Amino acid sequence: MSEILNDSVEELVKKISLSKITSVEICNAYIERINKFEKEVKAWAFFDKKLLLEKAKEADDYKNSGKPTGPLHGIPVAVKDIVGTIEMPTECGTPIRKGKSYSQNAEIIDLLHSSGAIVMGKTATSELAYLGPPKTTNPHDNSRTPGGSSSGSAAAVASFMAPLAIGSQTGGSVIRPASFCGVVGYKPSYGLISRNGVLKTSEKLDQIGVFGKSVEDVARLAKILIKKDSFDPATIYFSADNMISSVKEGPLYEPKFIFYKTDFWKMIDKKSKEAFEYFIKSFKKNIEIFDTPSYFKDIHKYHQIIHETDLANNFSDYYKKSKNKLSKYMQSAIKNGNKYSGKEYAEAIDFMKRSYESYKEVFEDYHGILTPSSPGVAPKGLKSTGTAEFNKVWSYLGTPCISLPLLQGENNLPLGIQLVGEKYDDNRFLGVASWIEKESKKFNE
Amino acid sequence: MSEILNDSVEELVKKISLSKITSVEICNAYIERINKFEKEVKAWAFFDKKLLLEKAKEADDYKNSGKPTGPLHGIPVAVKDIVGTIEMPTECGTPIRKGKSYSQNAEIIDLLHSSGAIVMGKTATSELAYLGPPKTTNPHDNSRTPGGSSSGSAAAVASFMAPLAIGSQTGGSVIRPASFCGVVGYKPSYGLISRNGVLKTSEKLDQIGVFGKSVEDVARLAKILIKKDSFDPATIYFSADNMISSVKEGPLYEPKFIFYKTDFWKMIDKKSKEAFEYFIKSFKKNIEIFDTPSYFKDIHKYHQIIHETDLANNFSDYYKKSKNKLSKYMQSAIKNGNKYSGKEYAEAIDFMKRSYESYKEVFEDYHGILTPSSPGVAPKGLKSTGTAEFNKVWSYLGTPCISLPLLQGENNLPLGIQLVGEKYDDNRFLGVASWIEKESKKFNE
Repeated sequence: MSEILNDSVEELVKKISLSKITSVEICNAYIERINKFEKEVKAWAFFDKKLLLEKAKEADDYKNSGKPTGPLHGIPVAVKDIVGTIEMPTECGTPIRKGKSYSQNAEIIDLLHSSGAIVMGKTATSELAYLGPPKTTNPHDNSRTPGGSSSGSAAAVASFMAPLAIGSQTGGSVIRPASFCGVVGYKPSYGLISRNGVLKTSEKLDQIGVFGKSVEDVARLAKILIKKDSFDPATIYFSADNMISSVKEGPLYEPKFIFYKTDFWKMIDKKSKEAFEYFIKSFKKNIEIFDTPSYFKDIHKYHQIIHETDLANNFSDYYKKSKNKLSKYMQSAIKNGNKYSGKEYAEAIDFMKRSYESYKEVFEDYHGILTPSSPGVAPKGLKSTGTAEFNKVWSYLGTPCISLPLLQGENNLPLGIQLVGEKYDDNRFLGVASWIEKESKKFNE
Repeated sequence: MSEILNDSVEELVKKISLSKITSVEICNAYIERINKFEKEVKAWAFFDKKLLLEKAKEADDYKNSGKPTGPLHGIPVAVKDIVGTIEMPTECGTPIRKGKSYSQNAEIIDLLHSSGAIVMGKTATSELAYLGPPKTTNPHDNSRTPGGSSSGSAAAVASFMAPLAIGSQTGGSVIRPASFCGVVGYKPSYGLISRNGVLKTSEKLDQIGVFGKSVEDVARLAKILIKKDSFDPATIYFSADNMISSVKEGPLYEPKFIFYKTDFWKMIDKKSKEAFEYFIKSFKKNIEIFDTPSYFKDIHKYHQIIHETDLANNFSDYYKKSKNKLSKYMQSAIKNGNKYSGKEYAEAIDFMKRSYESYKEVFEDYHGILTPSSPGVAPKGLKSTGTAEFNKVWSYLGTPCISLPLLQGENNLPLGIQLVGEKYDDNRFLGVASWIEKESKKFNE
């Protein structure tokens, strides 16, 4: 395997900057992997080798002209196919949008360009970023799901077909595929990254996330995407200036965590449970195990009300005109979504802020919450992307969460540990995540 | 009329501090007015002379002990009867709560106490702060409505039965009664004042407001109420430190305004129209007249969906158990509120932030929006509190708004001009309001 594929993003950027390597060389290394593995993994909804090499060449020429380069200059990034792009189709995982493009780039595409990064191609997504699975398979076992809805983004990074990828999460669409595919998946706090020009499935729940090989790699991608955007009124002013230094330096204290096994612990297979128990034991100085607060049950109910109602609102045209082209998952969600009353929806929205006020009390005594990222390893079969039961609460609360590929479950398949933090505390949060990443390596040495 | 009644809040506070006057003397001056006018005006839901004088005596003793005093030490403040108080009943304008108290003080009651202010009594409110009118009459003409739902608060200040009062606005419940009664009514930006311990009618729309005789007086009351409160998750950190200096100094520039006659201009009587036209003419250097943006119509629709759904949610127990004790207004609102779908409610919430993004563009070129506070003067009769058509948009958007009693309509009844500002810009906003107040005096001299 080419050395390029094992380089960190920082190393790649540095090598380009020192002219030790070109963007064309980097892209060729990834193209070689795609040629070899895409047939089985099917991570891409759109990939054009020629277009990618043209853009890499442009980046190299620009660099050679002596102009100042951005923080990701020449680095290819895979982008989930719900993110609007002009020069590539944006099909959103539905045959209804076959071959269609957006008329403008999403804000985050422009931010990628500003950073010097190259949009590599579009990665396969579950139907409209919901549950209907794409053709993508799990790189570790092609008979298993990669998880969803950011299936292609996670699978592309896991199979070294891309160094970095952008995804999104409304339920568990970043953390779950990251866990199943064995990569780092990070969903920043709600409001840090603009969704302008990205398929809207639920205004209150949709959040952009990123995939990479390490905490530092995902931090480098997230950092350039974080920006207040008046076209996404949910975005806030947030300074990610010290995000990378926080990751490099880690916390100044020995962090303390709560581990929530959650009510879904019983869903987890034996091997995976053993792996989690081993993790807890290894970090026993730092971890206390607690029962989940009782209101988490309400959050699951409320998450569903908001999610399904918003799907029914946002895809009512598809449902009216092309119902038979929608998956059974989407049809059933829209059918439910049409039934909720305004009173139920109002309650579900009202509880968002109130529950967060209770939730954040955890951070008076602890530096983070740990949970399984998913109920065990990727399940067999490609007809479902698995469940998001370990993820919905944090999507609803809008907290930062990250899946770290630190464990192995049955058949030595990858399994993620999820760290959850305090809203808007992403800089420090990633420092803590990086600490866990480093300490775990010690235990496994 | 006692000199005390004409003193500004600043003067009263100064005189108490210099021992030129006592809190007991101030309260006695207001008690005299209450003895004389309450029979006709019926502004109070609860008033106990003895209790008030006890508290005034306590304030005087405290001051004489030499301890440091707060910014409103010894000043009596009337409080709308939806604000929870332990030592006085909190009936919320409904026979269902006859004689009932809250088990704890609202956050703003504690803040009043901290400032040294005295809770004078509880003022009459429309039924559950909605449209069912209380017994209160308009002090300028007892056959007319004082407006609602903060009817007693506005009427008490207008008839010199209280120097300051607290109210609340969900549709137009501060601005409308201020206009009808001829006092200043100020509703700060959504999120500045905690609603913890105040009757909840609509989480997204309920906002606390204040009444007084001048912009500076209301600013002094608002300032001590503005505080982040974790029990009202909608509250934000906001510094009102320079609120009073901003009012005193006014803007550093000649302000420019948009005047929206709005789609409801046709509802206004001829005399009131003439008064508004005279005002516009007097300020012609500063005012440009515009049509209201087309999305204001949507806001009216969405405001109604949120308001009625939330009423149906919050008062479902009353509706189930004591329907016949609810007014026809409330019954009809709850009936509507039970009918909206989750999809409609979701749309109505979604549009709040989006419409604000459009709205705030006004402030790139202008320093405020002016509109009539109400469709003319207080209407005849006590069976309705008038309409909130000129107010709902700003309640929905959560912007600061203030009614200034600068005009007279038919029968020389008072008529307010409403100034609306940019969200969270309340300090500068009140400076601009104070500028209009001062300039108007010049025109009328």
